[in-house]
Formats: sequence, C-alpha cells, structure tokens
Amino acid sequence: MPTKLTGAQRTQALAGLSGWRDVEGRDAITKAYRFADFNAAFAFMTRAALMAEKMDHHPEWLNVYNRVEVTLSTHDAGGLTELDVKLAAFMDSVATGG
Amino acid sequence: MPTKLTGAQRTQALAGLSGWRDVEGRDAITKAYRFADFNAAFAFMTRAALMAEKMDHHPEWLNVYNRVEVTLSTHDAGGLTELDVKLAAFMDSVATGG
Repeated sequence: MPTKLTGAQRTQALAGLSGWRDVEGRDAITKAYRFADFNAAFAFMTRAALMAEKMDHHPEWLNVYNRVEVTLSTHDAGGLTELDVKLAAFMDSVATGG
Repeated sequence: MPTKLTGAQRTQALAGLSGWRDVEGRDAITKAYRFADFNAAFAFMTRAALMAEKMDHHPEWLNVYNRVEVTLSTHDAGGLTELDVKLAAFMDSVATGG
C-alpha cells in the first residue's frame, strides 16, 4: 500500500511533473490535456487506461471531444501517493508522443 | 445537419430510451452507467468511442473507476437531435451486452 506524500516528498515529486496543479479542497492533482481531435484524445485515454489497469490505479477523467481533464489521487491512502506521480508522468509521456 | 428535436418529437424520441434524464439548464440528456469494474467501464467507453467517431458525434463523459456519466447534446444544433438519441440507444445496447 503506497503512503501519502507529504511536505518535501510531495513538493519534490510534483517538481518532476509539468502542468499539473493541486485540486482545491482535496489532496489531488489535475491537468487538462488538449489534442488535435477526438481520435487523438481517445487514443491517449486508451494508452492511459491500459497502464492504469496494469497499475490497478485509476484516474478520474472527463472527456469532451479533444479535451481530457484528469484528476489523480489515491483513495486508499487519502491523498497523493507515488502511484499518482507515476501515472501522471506516464500520461505526460503519452501526450507528448512518448 | 440534424435539426433540434422539439415538443412531441423530443418526447417520443426520449420515450424509446431508458434511464436518461434532462440536464438542468441545457438542452441535453444524461445517464450514469455503473459496471463491474474499470475494465468493463472502459470496454463500454471504447465501443461507444468507435461509434461516436463513425457518427462524427461525440459524448461528454466522466469516468471514475466503474462509473461512466454521459451527457449528450448536439452543439451545432443547440440542443438534442436524432444523433443524440441514436448514440444513447447504442450506448444502452452496449451496456446491456448488445
């Protein structure tokens, strides 16, 4: 079971990510991705879904045409953990063609 | 270009669907689906995405683990059209194993 990141751990973990911001009123992070079209947005979601399933750690996400808004948090830990940071980094790599 | 459904047309079209309700303050319909797990929820989304892309008519949807909340409306028509009713019916058929 991953433990909740706090203080310097949390700051350091987030420093390695780009474009993610804290969610107000929750220990969670969020990012809005924008793609060329629905096809590209859903391709991103599909790659992220396969990783999420493999990690057994799932995003909360909203898709409207070419936009995907992702929120990450670890419910069992009551906040942000390494799992969220890992999934966020993977999503960023997919979004930039990685 | 599909035209906005109004009055009796709209009532009749929605009568053929189950579990969809009007969105407050918008001419749109919404439904919350619940599946066994993320795998089943994303399988549903994938089948719906392929149909949406084929129809060139896309949902607004939120996924949190086994839940998928879908909102349908036709932006170009400023409200509900036959495209929404067709996509809603397809989603229902997929969700029930169709």
